[in-house]
Amino acid sequence: MSTHRFAVNVTPKPGILDPQGRAVEGSLGHLGIEGVSAVRVGRRVELTVDAADEAAARRVVERLAGELLANPLIEAYTIESIAGASSTTAVGAA
Amino acid sequence: MSTHRFAVNVTPKPGILDPQGRAVEGSLGHLGIEGVSAVRVGRRVELTVDAADEAAARRVVERLAGELLANPLIEAYTIESIAGASSTTAVGAA
Repeated sequence: MSTHRFAVNVTPKPGILDPQGRAVEGSLGHLGIEGVSAVRVGRRVELTVDAADEAAARRVVERLAGELLANPLIEAYTIESIAGASSTTAVGAA
Repeated sequence: MSTHRFAVNVTPKPGILDPQGRAVEGSLGHLGIEGVSAVRVGRRVELTVDAADEAAARRVVERLAGELLANPLIEAYTIESIAGASSTTAVGAA
């Protein structure tokens, strides 16, 4: 078994209304920030998976992303392997 | 001027309650998914910045992240340069 940490980045698909992104853009003037555009607000889910190997762990994350974390009609997702993963070769311990 | 695309990943700090993460963990059993733990749910904000150079663009994103996108009391953020950036040397066009 090995332990892997992933991030799932979920963003609204192009063309889908993004009211949070518009709200951020509307606040830029108050902060005196210029030159920022095309703001899209999505979710980032970080999680740890114990599986036989990295490929098996990634399959679990794929399923989770498609069935629970993102709405495939209106959202796109990418899966990213992040640091903090460790391969644990069990030595006797349960 | 050049154009840069960044992502700001905002996650709850360690020790801060994360009810969305708990909700995801609570749903795993219904989906028959095993081996997933330590789920943290945050936000991912993608944005385009026009600035003199990449360092200037990153300073804008730093300010935006610290003042608007994240609550520094309970959230941590990382800034990531993402693809889709292009350096535009203006040639006549407005």
